[in-house]
Amino acid sequence: MSKITVLGAGSWGTALALVLCDNQHQVTLWTHNSEQKLQLEKDRVNNKYLPGVSLPNSLHISDNLNQSVDEADAILLVVPTKAIRNVCKQLNAILDKPTLIIHASKGIEPDTHLRISEMIREELDESQIKDIVVLSGPSHAEEVGLRHPTTVTAASEIKDTAKTTQELFMNSYFRVYTSTDVIGVELGGALKNIIALGAGISDGLEYGDNAKAALITRGLAEITRLATNLGANPLTFIGLSGVGDLIVTCTSVHSRNWRAGNLFGKGMNIDEVEEELGMVAEGIRTTKAVFQLANKINVKMPITQGIHTIIFDDEEPKKVVDYLMKRAPTNEMDDISEMLRTRLSD
Amino acid sequence: MSKITVLGAGSWGTALALVLCDNQHQVTLWTHNSEQKLQLEKDRVNNKYLPGVSLPNSLHISDNLNQSVDEADAILLVVPTKAIRNVCKQLNAILDKPTLIIHASKGIEPDTHLRISEMIREELDESQIKDIVVLSGPSHAEEVGLRHPTTVTAASEIKDTAKTTQELFMNSYFRVYTSTDVIGVELGGALKNIIALGAGISDGLEYGDNAKAALITRGLAEITRLATNLGANPLTFIGLSGVGDLIVTCTSVHSRNWRAGNLFGKGMNIDEVEEELGMVAEGIRTTKAVFQLANKINVKMPITQGIHTIIFDDEEPKKVVDYLMKRAPTNEMDDISEMLRTRLSD
Repeated sequence: MSKITVLGAGSWGTALALVLCDNQHQVTLWTHNSEQKLQLEKDRVNNKYLPGVSLPNSLHISDNLNQSVDEADAILLVVPTKAIRNVCKQLNAILDKPTLIIHASKGIEPDTHLRISEMIREELDESQIKDIVVLSGPSHAEEVGLRHPTTVTAASEIKDTAKTTQELFMNSYFRVYTSTDVIGVELGGALKNIIALGAGISDGLEYGDNAKAALITRGLAEITRLATNLGANPLTFIGLSGVGDLIVTCTSVHSRNWRAGNLFGKGMNIDEVEEELGMVAEGIRTTKAVFQLANKINVKMPITQGIHTIIFDDEEPKKVVDYLMKRAPTNEMDDISEMLRTRLSD
Repeated sequence: MSKITVLGAGSWGTALALVLCDNQHQVTLWTHNSEQKLQLEKDRVNNKYLPGVSLPNSLHISDNLNQSVDEADAILLVVPTKAIRNVCKQLNAILDKPTLIIHASKGIEPDTHLRISEMIREELDESQIKDIVVLSGPSHAEEVGLRHPTTVTAASEIKDTAKTTQELFMNSYFRVYTSTDVIGVELGGALKNIIALGAGISDGLEYGDNAKAALITRGLAEITRLATNLGANPLTFIGLSGVGDLIVTCTSVHSRNWRAGNLFGKGMNIDEVEEELGMVAEGIRTTKAVFQLANKINVKMPITQGIHTIIFDDEEPKKVVDYLMKRAPTNEMDDISEMLRTRLSD
């Protein structure tokens, strides 16, 4: 039995806390929001983010970060990307020994183009980090709440800590695979949102299953190309945090990014899309960051470029798709083969 | 302009004939069925297999195989897998010069476990074959009929003939990539049907998106493993005829194999499923062939084995999925990395 603190009581944080409770760990779920803490304690259900799922009696709820992380064997970070730095700054003032940090957030920081684990490393002192493990894969929180079969990947450069994480979470409905490719697993989770936007745009144009499959497949090739250039193992993209997560995100009408894309495909501009959704879809931010990054390091990403043009230059979606279809004919695997050859000969 | 004969007036043969007509080739569509020939000539619509799509005036219809293939620059074979040998036997008695054979059929022959191009080579004389090219990818025929954007792969061991095929078919809505991996492209098209059955079973159990994504992703890993053992390039499975085709097949409720799986998941046995569907789903035949083949060449395929047990041993689907979730924890990419290393060091 381990003492684990989950930071962030959104849908995914709550679902992962349940998994850990089912595995008989001593779990604290922390929220910065005192009202939410009271609601969770009173109802023993996360009405706002994971309705209908009872919280186990063993789950401790807290809004006190200091007390929450005291004596914790591991900290699970599941706050929104934009809150990562702030929460880590607070942890920096508290942690007094090397701690295992597991994170399950997805995104890339605007402007700096940093991954989550890189942001965490910038905020915490080296002496506070035992290791940083990323947990990612195709997983709607509601389905984990129902104990439906789910698989994810736990990645760390240190095999032992990936294995420790696997042992903490693994049970009869939650299967965890290990990986040593932190870069690939983190980028897969972030970049897939661009492709989900594209899948939504294609569906908004009512172009059908063939076009959507083409977009997802060629999109996968180009996010793999970028990630490999940034040090990822391209094989990670055939796995759960690549193809797996992509399938769930691109084919679910519940995906926020797919919905945003769908509205662009139907002819709305960015202001109208954001008004309709009541928020900025994560994929829009990621598209901007990745477009800049691809230009900076000179990686060809025609689909991302096309989506960027639709969102930020108000280009007609139909024109962009037609352009993508008419590019010069190529061999399907030339670039990916080349990447793998380079990588595996390392 | 080339003279091309399309053998088989089902939905896919008819749709591909339209693409070739749009590209200004001289196209003959052959059917062995005289009544169908008369219907197509009279209505200029394939009412049974591609309703609502007008056949171009330039398309020639025939039920005379001898006349159809006379002077053809290329023959496109799009007949059902079980008719391949019979049609090729007839061609064997007719062809008197090396001819480019393109095929767009999907499947593996029961008992012999041969791919389509291997069956063709057994029936035609070497002197009659200029080359055999396989055309495969995520493509509902109805969407091609509507000229919606579609992408496919043309594979041949001879780069030039793959390129010729690409040039014959490529246009503004039909994008063709080339590949030299005939084995991978043929196996991708056939093996994906097993995974579609599995996706249907998961949905029939109402296990949700996470479980389905896990099944598709881990299924992709195991069909890649088998195909690599048979000489395919694992990278092909990241492409259009792998992931691409898989996504369309596993997420479309129109897929016959998904529907069959769904009925198994809901508790029907094989007799009930076949009665309900009015036919044998291709994936059931493929599961049987691949299960035998995997045992013969000693390749681990736990998902295929599980599906085989459900179909042929009447095992409870829930038990099989639970078993798959509870196997020993593993590293996600070990086996695939090993395959690629082996392959790329060739």
